Amino acid sequence: MIIILKPGVSEQDAKELVQKIESTGLKPLYMPGVERTVLGAIGDERVLQSLRLDSDPRVDEIKPILSKYKLVSRELNPVDSHVMLGQHLVGGGRFTVIAGPCGVESRDQLLSVAEMVKQHPVAALRGGAFKPRTSPYSFQGLGEEGLKLLQEANRQTGLPTVSEVVDAADAELMAQYVDCLQIGARNMQNFRLLEAVGKLGLPVLLKRGMSATIEELLLAAEYIVNAGNPNVILCERGIRTFETATRNTLDLNAVAYLKRKTHLPVLVDPSHGTGVRELIAPLSYASAAVGADGIIVETHLKPAEALSDGHQALNAEQFADLITGLRPFVEAAGKTL
Amino acid sequence: MIIILKPGVSEQDAKELVQKIESTGLKPLYMPGVERTVLGAIGDERVLQSLRLDSDPRVDEIKPILSKYKLVSRELNPVDSHVMLGQHLVGGGRFTVIAGPCGVESRDQLLSVAEMVKQHPVAALRGGAFKPRTSPYSFQGLGEEGLKLLQEANRQTGLPTVSEVVDAADAELMAQYVDCLQIGARNMQNFRLLEAVGKLGLPVLLKRGMSATIEELLLAAEYIVNAGNPNVILCERGIRTFETATRNTLDLNAVAYLKRKTHLPVLVDPSHGTGVRELIAPLSYASAAVGADGIIVETHLKPAEALSDGHQALNAEQFADLITGLRPFVEAAGKTL
Amino acid sequence: MIIILKPGVSEQDAKELVQKIESTGLKPLYMPGVERTVLGAIGDERVLQSLRLDSDPRVDEIKPILSKYKLVSRELNPVDSHVMLGQHLVGGGRFTVIAGPCGVESRDQLLSVAEMVKQHPVAALRGGAFKPRTSPYSFQGLGEEGLKLLQEANRQTGLPTVSEVVDAADAELMAQYVDCLQIGARNMQNFRLLEAVGKLGLPVLLKRGMSATIEELLLAAEYIVNAGNPNVILCERGIRTFETATRNTLDLNAVAYLKRKTHLPVLVDPSHGTGVRELIAPLSYASAAVGADGIIVETHLKPAEALSDGHQALNAEQFADLITGLRPFVEAAGKTL
Amino acid sequence: MIIILKPGVSEQDAKELVQKIESTGLKPLYMPGVERTVLGAIGDERVLQSLRLDSDPRVDEIKPILSKYKLVSRELNPVDSHVMLGQHLVGGGRFTVIAGPCGVESRDQLLSVAEMVKQHPVAALRGGAFKPRTSPYSFQGLGEEGLKLLQEANRQTGLPTVSEVVDAADAELMAQYVDCLQIGARNMQNFRLLEAVGKLGLPVLLKRGMSATIEELLLAAEYIVNAGNPNVILCERGIRTFETATRNTLDLNAVAYLKRKTHLPVLVDPSHGTGVRELIAPLSYASAAVGADGIIVETHLKPAEALSDGHQALNAEQFADLITGLRPFVEAAGKTL
Repeated sequence: MIIILKPGVSEQDAKELVQKIESTGLKPLYMPGVERTVLGAIGDERVLQSLRLDSDPRVDEIKPILSKYKLVSRELNPVDSHVMLGQHLVGGGRFTVIAGPCGVESRDQLLSVAEMVKQHPVAALRGGAFKPRTSPYSFQGLGEEGLKLLQEANRQTGLPTVSEVVDAADAELMAQYVDCLQIGARNMQNFRLLEAVGKLGLPVLLKRGMSATIEELLLAAEYIVNAGNPNVILCERGIRTFETATRNTLDLNAVAYLKRKTHLPVLVDPSHGTGVRELIAPLSYASAAVGADGIIVETHLKPAEALSDGHQALNAEQFADLITGLRPFVEAAGKTL
Repeated sequence: MIIILKPGVSEQDAKELVQKIESTGLKPLYMPGVERTVLGAIGDERVLQSLRLDSDPRVDEIKPILSKYKLVSRELNPVDSHVMLGQHLVGGGRFTVIAGPCGVESRDQLLSVAEMVKQHPVAALRGGAFKPRTSPYSFQGLGEEGLKLLQEANRQTGLPTVSEVVDAADAELMAQYVDCLQIGARNMQNFRLLEAVGKLGLPVLLKRGMSATIEELLLAAEYIVNAGNPNVILCERGIRTFETATRNTLDLNAVAYLKRKTHLPVLVDPSHGTGVRELIAPLSYASAAVGADGIIVETHLKPAEALSDGHQALNAEQFADLITGLRPFVEAAGKTL
Repeated sequence: MIIILKPGVSEQDAKELVQKIESTGLKPLYMPGVERTVLGAIGDERVLQSLRLDSDPRVDEIKPILSKYKLVSRELNPVDSHVMLGQHLVGGGRFTVIAGPCGVESRDQLLSVAEMVKQHPVAALRGGAFKPRTSPYSFQGLGEEGLKLLQEANRQTGLPTVSEVVDAADAELMAQYVDCLQIGARNMQNFRLLEAVGKLGLPVLLKRGMSATIEELLLAAEYIVNAGNPNVILCERGIRTFETATRNTLDLNAVAYLKRKTHLPVLVDPSHGTGVRELIAPLSYASAAVGADGIIVETHLKPAEALSDGHQALNAEQFADLITGLRPFVEAAGKTL
Repeated sequence: MIIILKPGVSEQDAKELVQKIESTGLKPLYMPGVERTVLGAIGDERVLQSLRLDSDPRVDEIKPILSKYKLVSRELNPVDSHVMLGQHLVGGGRFTVIAGPCGVESRDQLLSVAEMVKQHPVAALRGGAFKPRTSPYSFQGLGEEGLKLLQEANRQTGLPTVSEVVDAADAELMAQYVDCLQIGARNMQNFRLLEAVGKLGLPVLLKRGMSATIEELLLAAEYIVNAGNPNVILCERGIRTFETATRNTLDLNAVAYLKRKTHLPVLVDPSHGTGVRELIAPLSYASAAVGADGIIVETHLKPAEALSDGHQALNAEQFADLITGLRPFVEAAGKTL
């Protein structure tokens, strides 16, 4: 339920109401605003009725949250939420670019890519240390060694780092090395993992599963926020359809829809979303136009030698062209790079 | 095969070669360019070998066309082709907006919508006279009466008209009333219909089938061009996927991909592509950004009273807002409305 | 609406009620049964109320038809309907096998296949004279010449024939040569074609579109029955999904679902449904087990030389093995071959 | 590579070759057969060449394994493998039925269902203690308490138990209580979990992900076998498509295909595969006919009161009818219940 207080209700009164809600076993939310304060109560709504808040003189209106996801919905919180990635604000008027290699392969490879992307208005460096691979015989990532290299890249360039966590047991370890934990498409409904990252304060980049509905993505985000971590960034990365000309079908409908349903920031991954190098730039432009809060792009200084996903990585020149080409669309969207 | 002639080869020589190709039973193509002339030969390529063109002094290079579609491919013709919709050029530097109601319902309805859209930089008026409907009990369109109203709207406003043809037997009748024939998604592989419109010179707006691959769309276009009509405009209108939050999944990957593979202009239909009124504007912006040559949008003065698809029609105010919002993205794409 | 008459109401009384329904402009249905007569009224149900049938002493009960499809639903007619294919009854306790080549290629090819399939309990010979092909450069069928060969094969073997009609304008011509008109997957929503075959009395084999929902298939059948032709046989032939190991995904869920929702017979096409020769037999067995009324299978004496779909055609020996392997499953299903 | 030894090569010689393979760093496999022994070598095949086995007098033939999955392929091992579920053999000539509630809800619920299913030829009892649920607000299972109840049900009825493991950290705990670990559809590509169950000897029931290709399923199984556990049972449980009449689209093509590509046993889950109670029986029959090695079915004494998935659970009478109806199809398939 959403409990909208009357204008002028004091902070003390509001917190008293929060305690009343908490005493029933419901999860209370306290959202002070400029004009008036809004409270939330998540859980079995029949319990709330026992409090008779509708006759409380401090309460203006009580509304149910109709969507299945509560904490991440705009019904509860119509104002955009922001997530801090190091010093960089994701969401709001910024268009965030995260770039880096698919996998961390070596010190040289990572640091040289990091130096390259740093020449551009890039918010963070991405790179996988634990790689979920379809075949057990493919390169599986450098593991903790890769995390150490990400930390070194961060110290050298100042770029915050994003890396995928593939198991709940790794979450705390990873939090020591990187600035943002990515949940990959294959783990979007690994609920134990969602809860684990929900218990940390670190930003989480949650990628849509390859056959997950938009509602399922929002409910996965709800797991994280419900476990205590509000710093969730959603990411559309293409869904699996019958089309084979592209690796996945990037669903920009979903981005526009998400921006209307949730206050969380939404990024797009055009590298996985298309799987075709030539299509990354136009789909990045379209992402800016459709209202996304940014993109996450795979870059590699020598794509042909990449140990994974080289066919969809941009080299230094292509990445520079992408940033140049992107700028007018970001501006047309009223955002800044 | 593509036969590239040496610079300076005369028109007479080129035409002599065209005749030689034709004499083998292959379909010849004559494409004079500023610097040099290119010929094409469509059909069984082994036949061509008998001509020994590779040793002809006028021939510079012979290349196979690798894609299954020949006439519509950029391999054959790397330069964008344009289609005239009345006086309006579709393709090239223009961003074409086609608007109008889903179905022609009455004289009043059509003419008032036509006057409304005419206030904006709109290239043509759309409106269905023959409506393919999933249920036999739904409104099926006004038929020829609807075509007459489209003709009247054209005379009154000067806007060229686009209307769907649903059967080969109707093609000639429709050509008397409207300026562009639309092939709907359900008929994309109605090959008899494709051949029928291929025999007319009228522009054809060919919509992608709801589960058609990009290659199948291009081969459907090939049917039309192969039958003699080069005036084909492609249209992405959303594909059918597992997602149910939106009516279809608009595939902007396909638009970027098509622009690289074919010289034909490509429009986007965000009305059917989303099926959600609020999503039409952002996906229109994304269409401009991704490189589409325009959009086709459903408008209705009273969407709530529309006999079909009212939930995805824009009213006058929403349509005006769309055009205003679209402009900066069209400019960012280097095109003009 | 379904109007159930009281037991013992005379035929004369029932027909009087039918006339009353017709007088309102609704489409009446007269379904005499062993115990009692049931009437139907299709159209705007508010009109029916003016007749005040609920207070007519001959009427026992009036029920709305809740599904969007009316005439083909089990709500209206809970008893299985049968379709005569020549002397062969499709539906009921029979398991119908239709076999033959994908396309009619020559007199020799067709007659030899016909003789081969005649050695088995086969109900009809299939063979395409008009082939809808994805590419304009593929073999398009022999046209009317192919129809004549089908007629000759029928005269020689006594097997009724099934062939695809691809355009409304061909329907009457085809009816002169063949015993059953097939509507292919690509034409399932070619509503003009559905209406055209609906005006003939000939049995229609209606294949599910490759991305058509079950409801859309039933509404397509409704078009045919509503136009006057009750002799419709449905056919599941695989849907388009992300899976690429098989050509399509045969949806046997749909068969079981259809058997509960419609009284029409339902066949399965395992040749297109799998596109893999080795999978045709097991999926045929599964079709019998799931409740299908039969299968339609592609056969060719020399599959490697077939002009279309040879990779999914069974040769004489494989077809004989299929029939042998099928028998115990047909018997387990309580049906006869 | 597959290394086929000549007939009569001694065990000692074969093991010497195994050691040679191992010495190169490749993973060796030793598969003695009645007529001759086959060895395998998994890893970088260029390494193998250094051994010059092709000129070894004991070696008859060396063949590459062409499929991406090696250990689970029929190329390596053409003979069906079996998995022991308690005393019950899964695979071979048996048709295995696993039944039980979706989730373990209480002692009463579980034991009464267990007693019910025990009246039938059922191989094992299923029941979820850790439930992966789309929403954080849905019933999440009883956890370890549920595992204890499963153990009690096993002691009381003698039925082996199957329960889902959702996190690598739980695998060892679960192995103390249950006889078979299920990997659910959402975790099919949770590679850490696959490796964890691969280190245990316990049978694993691996469900296909809802948008996983058949190849991805086989590669997921390869992870488990490669980690050391050969006791893998595959399970088709429906894929996600555009169709909404059924919860998922059960892909029986995949079952027939899997039986040709892998030696592992394959079950079908018609409860999740259809999501519609009335369709469970016909799709179970079809599963037997298509060649599956069994089914896993949800049962509940009071489906209407189930805390999860009650709409697709069979009650005692429906389950008894299923077993009765299933028998003739299992026999037609040449198997025994």
